Amino acid sequence: MSAANGAPKGRVCLAYSGGLDTSCILAWLIEQGYEVIAYMANIGQEEDFEVAKAKALKIGAKSVHIEDVRKEFVDETIYAAVSANATYENIYLLGTSLARPIIARKQIEIAKREGCDYVSHGCTGKGNDQVRFEISYYALMPTIKCIVPWRIPEFFNRFQGRQDLLDYAAEKGIPVTQTKAKPWSTDENMYHISFEAGILEDPDTTPPADMWKLTVNPEDAPNTPERLVSSITFKDGRPVKVVNAGDGTTHTDSLELFLYLNAMGRKHGVGRLDIVENRFVGIKSRGCYETPAGTILIAAHRDLEGLVMDREVRKIRDTLSPRLAELIYNGFWFAPERELIMSLVDHSQKGVDGSVKIKLYKGSCTIEGRSSAVSLYDRDISSMDIAGGFNPQDSEGFIRTHAIRIKAWEAVKAKKGNQ
Amino acid sequence: MSAANGAPKGRVCLAYSGGLDTSCILAWLIEQGYEVIAYMANIGQEEDFEVAKAKALKIGAKSVHIEDVRKEFVDETIYAAVSANATYENIYLLGTSLARPIIARKQIEIAKREGCDYVSHGCTGKGNDQVRFEISYYALMPTIKCIVPWRIPEFFNRFQGRQDLLDYAAEKGIPVTQTKAKPWSTDENMYHISFEAGILEDPDTTPPADMWKLTVNPEDAPNTPERLVSSITFKDGRPVKVVNAGDGTTHTDSLELFLYLNAMGRKHGVGRLDIVENRFVGIKSRGCYETPAGTILIAAHRDLEGLVMDREVRKIRDTLSPRLAELIYNGFWFAPERELIMSLVDHSQKGVDGSVKIKLYKGSCTIEGRSSAVSLYDRDISSMDIAGGFNPQDSEGFIRTHAIRIKAWEAVKAKKGNQ
Amino acid sequence: MSAANGAPKGRVCLAYSGGLDTSCILAWLIEQGYEVIAYMANIGQEEDFEVAKAKALKIGAKSVHIEDVRKEFVDETIYAAVSANATYENIYLLGTSLARPIIARKQIEIAKREGCDYVSHGCTGKGNDQVRFEISYYALMPTIKCIVPWRIPEFFNRFQGRQDLLDYAAEKGIPVTQTKAKPWSTDENMYHISFEAGILEDPDTTPPADMWKLTVNPEDAPNTPERLVSSITFKDGRPVKVVNAGDGTTHTDSLELFLYLNAMGRKHGVGRLDIVENRFVGIKSRGCYETPAGTILIAAHRDLEGLVMDREVRKIRDTLSPRLAELIYNGFWFAPERELIMSLVDHSQKGVDGSVKIKLYKGSCTIEGRSSAVSLYDRDISSMDIAGGFNPQDSEGFIRTHAIRIKAWEAVKAKKGNQ
Amino acid sequence: MSAANGAPKGRVCLAYSGGLDTSCILAWLIEQGYEVIAYMANIGQEEDFEVAKAKALKIGAKSVHIEDVRKEFVDETIYAAVSANATYENIYLLGTSLARPIIARKQIEIAKREGCDYVSHGCTGKGNDQVRFEISYYALMPTIKCIVPWRIPEFFNRFQGRQDLLDYAAEKGIPVTQTKAKPWSTDENMYHISFEAGILEDPDTTPPADMWKLTVNPEDAPNTPERLVSSITFKDGRPVKVVNAGDGTTHTDSLELFLYLNAMGRKHGVGRLDIVENRFVGIKSRGCYETPAGTILIAAHRDLEGLVMDREVRKIRDTLSPRLAELIYNGFWFAPERELIMSLVDHSQKGVDGSVKIKLYKGSCTIEGRSSAVSLYDRDISSMDIAGGFNPQDSEGFIRTHAIRIKAWEAVKAKKGNQ
Repeated sequence: MSAANGAPKGRVCLAYSGGLDTSCILAWLIEQGYEVIAYMANIGQEEDFEVAKAKALKIGAKSVHIEDVRKEFVDETIYAAVSANATYENIYLLGTSLARPIIARKQIEIAKREGCDYVSHGCTGKGNDQVRFEISYYALMPTIKCIVPWRIPEFFNRFQGRQDLLDYAAEKGIPVTQTKAKPWSTDENMYHISFEAGILEDPDTTPPADMWKLTVNPEDAPNTPERLVSSITFKDGRPVKVVNAGDGTTHTDSLELFLYLNAMGRKHGVGRLDIVENRFVGIKSRGCYETPAGTILIAAHRDLEGLVMDREVRKIRDTLSPRLAELIYNGFWFAPERELIMSLVDHSQKGVDGSVKIKLYKGSCTIEGRSSAVSLYDRDISSMDIAGGFNPQDSEGFIRTHAIRIKAWEAVKAKKGNQ
Repeated sequence: MSAANGAPKGRVCLAYSGGLDTSCILAWLIEQGYEVIAYMANIGQEEDFEVAKAKALKIGAKSVHIEDVRKEFVDETIYAAVSANATYENIYLLGTSLARPIIARKQIEIAKREGCDYVSHGCTGKGNDQVRFEISYYALMPTIKCIVPWRIPEFFNRFQGRQDLLDYAAEKGIPVTQTKAKPWSTDENMYHISFEAGILEDPDTTPPADMWKLTVNPEDAPNTPERLVSSITFKDGRPVKVVNAGDGTTHTDSLELFLYLNAMGRKHGVGRLDIVENRFVGIKSRGCYETPAGTILIAAHRDLEGLVMDREVRKIRDTLSPRLAELIYNGFWFAPERELIMSLVDHSQKGVDGSVKIKLYKGSCTIEGRSSAVSLYDRDISSMDIAGGFNPQDSEGFIRTHAIRIKAWEAVKAKKGNQ
Repeated sequence: MSAANGAPKGRVCLAYSGGLDTSCILAWLIEQGYEVIAYMANIGQEEDFEVAKAKALKIGAKSVHIEDVRKEFVDETIYAAVSANATYENIYLLGTSLARPIIARKQIEIAKREGCDYVSHGCTGKGNDQVRFEISYYALMPTIKCIVPWRIPEFFNRFQGRQDLLDYAAEKGIPVTQTKAKPWSTDENMYHISFEAGILEDPDTTPPADMWKLTVNPEDAPNTPERLVSSITFKDGRPVKVVNAGDGTTHTDSLELFLYLNAMGRKHGVGRLDIVENRFVGIKSRGCYETPAGTILIAAHRDLEGLVMDREVRKIRDTLSPRLAELIYNGFWFAPERELIMSLVDHSQKGVDGSVKIKLYKGSCTIEGRSSAVSLYDRDISSMDIAGGFNPQDSEGFIRTHAIRIKAWEAVKAKKGNQ
Repeated sequence: MSAANGAPKGRVCLAYSGGLDTSCILAWLIEQGYEVIAYMANIGQEEDFEVAKAKALKIGAKSVHIEDVRKEFVDETIYAAVSANATYENIYLLGTSLARPIIARKQIEIAKREGCDYVSHGCTGKGNDQVRFEISYYALMPTIKCIVPWRIPEFFNRFQGRQDLLDYAAEKGIPVTQTKAKPWSTDENMYHISFEAGILEDPDTTPPADMWKLTVNPEDAPNTPERLVSSITFKDGRPVKVVNAGDGTTHTDSLELFLYLNAMGRKHGVGRLDIVENRFVGIKSRGCYETPAGTILIAAHRDLEGLVMDREVRKIRDTLSPRLAELIYNGFWFAPERELIMSLVDHSQKGVDGSVKIKLYKGSCTIEGRSSAVSLYDRDISSMDIAGGFNPQDSEGFIRTHAIRIKAWEAVKAKKGNQ
């Protein structure tokens, strides 16, 4: 497990997952003559970090850094995305994209601390994650160099399939979990799990029931709905409290309330998604996702905005949310345009305060009411029964004035004989 | 039931619903000295049109016109909205807004045919529907005059509550259904039913289970999911076929397949919504809606676009869909900007052909697969296992080029000491 | 000149210009039984305020308030608009719209101080200014009531033309300037002068040379260009210094430098505009404008942004500038959406620092160079002669990756036989 | 001048300009063992095509194709851009970008006809033009391969400066024009000429007077303005007639009228531009441009739209014009998103018919009037002197209704204590 002869080529900080791919990459980098610092981010994925650490050390990592970044993940990227209702292509909640900048930032911190010349990761050359990692790296440390084995011909030509990796692992003495490979790939963190590739590459294939991991199958979910009465409270567009009268719990810590909502969403089968999306590199791709807490939070947040946000403010923010989602998806978290849009989103969220009642039931998340101390809703003026300060005759002038332009256009249209 | 003394003031075409409000308006218009032509549009609402007709004649309508506009409703406005994924404020499916232009157009046709000087409707002075009707009237017949009793002080001061209307009905011999008034208002058509006002004016009040009318309560829906296998087929973005292998039916007529999807959606509790929205006149309002087929169709249509629509085309169309939804909501169907945006939407829908598999279950509508003969999805290039003509090294240049701008910005940021 | 019999109806704060219209309105309001406080804003228009004050007192104003708001005009609205490059319909620099909120805010201050129940102005019922004033009034004092004589039938029916006003002035002893009325209307402030109505109502009529007031006719402008070398310096998107090596002057005070640029622009015939625009009330209108300093400032500011602003930041800001211009034009300065957009604009302007060289010559304003200490321009990487850290091969991957999507689309297009 | 030993490597269609760079590339490709077909597009640049042809043949081109594409250039891309008012970053008229797809399409036609395996061009690896050419190539012939010498290390390392090219030309017997090289690069076509690099790489350097080529220095332009009375007539947004009463000429052919406007613009010094722009590859670049006819046409076209285009239609189109300009700039003419946006632009241009009066004078282009048979301008309703069917009281309701939302917001703002 020693490095190649002579002086090392340099020091690499590798984003290590503990799986077959990055274990082989770790061994291969050492074989190529690099010193390797392994780095694992705890972003809430299901993983035995100590086992993985021992494995990396056994393969030859000079050191292994395990970093719990869950708190910054939820506070900095997840809740920012929720406050913007950011959904890529109007549907995808960005579970992987939101984790990448958090992982990359810590990796660069370690690379700097450990004096690394290089960073490396195990992402493929066709996907989004390579971009998300590397744009982040370059933003945070413009002089860093990236080693991306899956884009290096001598690597990808050598390892053309899973069997080649298994053979190499055997050769290098890398322990391999004996579970049979699943016919799809996954990426998991606290916010979501993604499934792609393998049998999912036919977009008409319905995912098998046993693929889904985080959430219960809606058909198997409890027959009794879960009602989170006065449940989710927001302050300036960020969740600050979850109350469930049913189980008598209250959660106020940002991470803790998130994990609680995750548990509720999982139990009731909330947050599954199956789509064909457009990768940044221009390739269409089919992905399945489970995002339990995120699905609930965005539904609740969007609902509350109906009560407390000015119509025009909402409309303008809504023109930028898709752009924000797109740039997060594409990997531009550490970019001036992300800061710019977030400055507007943050301004829009001042006063997005209040509580939303939620019902979870067999896969769906339903809003059952909302309230706020700073509501823009005025019961009297809204009422159909009382005037509430509204003069109905004002509407006459409102409508007639709006009709001026339409009448002018119709008159010219008639003249042109287009009607 | 005769008109006032002397020559009539003119002839009015009244949009008549058969209910208490428009029955009183009918009587009141006659009392004011107008000749009234009553007009009822069959837009798929639950109604005994013959009973309503007899009632209008009894009150004194000179004639009553009942028009079935369901086919043009589904073909012209509903499917146009589906093809644009048009949702107001990202959530409301526009059920009332899409019906208004269809109703108004027919009303103007009748007004012209019957030589009317005026049109009239029973909408209040605070709502959206007055705008939708009148902008449509003015667009289609710029010289028409509108009589809107709920904006005329002598009318709205006389009729300050339901009891005043009941008293007037008794006085005028207008038959009143003896059912107790519900503590909310509704507006129903083939696409949806809306609920507002009354107890719903407190936005934190959960709607009672017996309010919902079109859809089964999800908790009471069948325990067995409904799978519409290869179910909804689109051609140029419009639904052309629904197949349900479960019940062995196939539907291809535009109206018939819509009604079938409605039946399926109702059975499985799909399409309920409870929101606070922003009316065009600047008032916030709480509304509840049931839109079964619409909910299914937009989910299926949006999913199919992932497979067959170019990313940039989708992105550009998505910047205009909210504007389209807004202008439909505000009443500008017969307006140049609606025609303009639809020209782009129609262009974008060329080639939105294919089929989507749907599962309906206890309130939710889930996509289980999609296929198309003109898919832009390329399994080989998408695959993580084979190259499929893709050179992974190209990604290197792609990323490095995208990083140039980010590095330049970070360098200046560092110079400014902002980091 | 006395008020009507009995107790006054209330106290009105009237925006008074000193001209025939508002003088008659002042007299008429008194005749109607109101106490009138006259208010004149000094926004840099050409006016003898003392003469106007004496006139108002003579007519019967209870008091006259003259307020110099030029500094807040330039600092709060003019430079905000410049920092956003705000131009309505891509062409109009908003000279009137930017003055209105400043005037209205001071008027409400006075109205509050003087215990007024009403505010009043002399704007017509067809224009934009009534909206701009009144939306500002209602925002700043929701309970205020507006008296708008030109929308009151007893007023506008009585005064149907200029002669009726002259007769009334004679009757009331209102002094009238003996100059012959010009065949157009004007509105002047420090930022611009507008011309409309009269002979300009034919949009094909070329404005006569003697109409233009602020700027020299380009044909009569100096034959020698004015070069403001290193002339206009911006800090965070706002002008902070103007240097003219030609006349040896330097100006750094925000108001003073503005007035200096105005003088330069006027001398060289810069800033004339002749357009047909769309009023908020839906009417098309022909207007001519002179905006000397504004034209120079926006040209310089936009140029500097090319050097110091990130491409994507600029692109996003540019999607909101038209909306900002529109809402300012429509009168929504004191509105949440204006604050929202300005929050993004202000963020975008951090680091818009640097200097721009300007040449003024016979009506045109030409950029001759620009520099900044925080430039994002990198001479080496831009150079066609040296590599500057750029690897030309990266472009290969960049292009080939961008082509993936295009190739997929062309393949399907060919399949569809659309080509 | 012979090819390498053995069979040729394949056949290349080279975009040949006749200059030093592409002459060396031609020789080098032959040296590398390729057969080369030289192709020159006549896009209106100043060039002796016969001399260039002889030169290419002398160097060893198998054949030389000279193609006059001026008509399709003006009809297909220039007038499309004018009809959209397409300007990149709100300022640049896209002169090079609009020529590239026209050149590339003809090149692919020739490549197919001549059985070429490759296409080649002389663009650098840092610029926009490589992208514009290659995206067009790949769109029109997905299987084509590109040889781009300035991105091939053995080429760009061998030719590191102009002297290396001159030495190679001498070695290969390539005739070189004896004029001294200018300290900047140019690209010229009928629409514009661009200047960049060399001394222009300092963005603060004012371009020397003798750099500008197409247009007269404004200071040297005629002292008498040129008035094109009723001059430019558009039909559906495209210019169809130019009349100059001054010289008695009328032009109606699309190419001819364009060349005439070019001559007028050149004479009066119209259309110069000096900017720092953002290249697609993420590099900032300083460029100077002369676009005489384009500057006049867009000014006239935009003005006419004020008269004949509905406000909302204009506003929506204006949200897409910047995106259209961007994608043209980036090289995506042959892309689905360009077709999509043009479908909307074309719809918006129906009825953009009418004439605009223009004055050209010492560098500026001024609008002096406009008229149309399908104007949406209504003199009566616009008039400040007559009612024209407008009821001023309608404005009251219009304003009061718009104020509802603002008052609600101010009330909550006060509650939050933010005011």
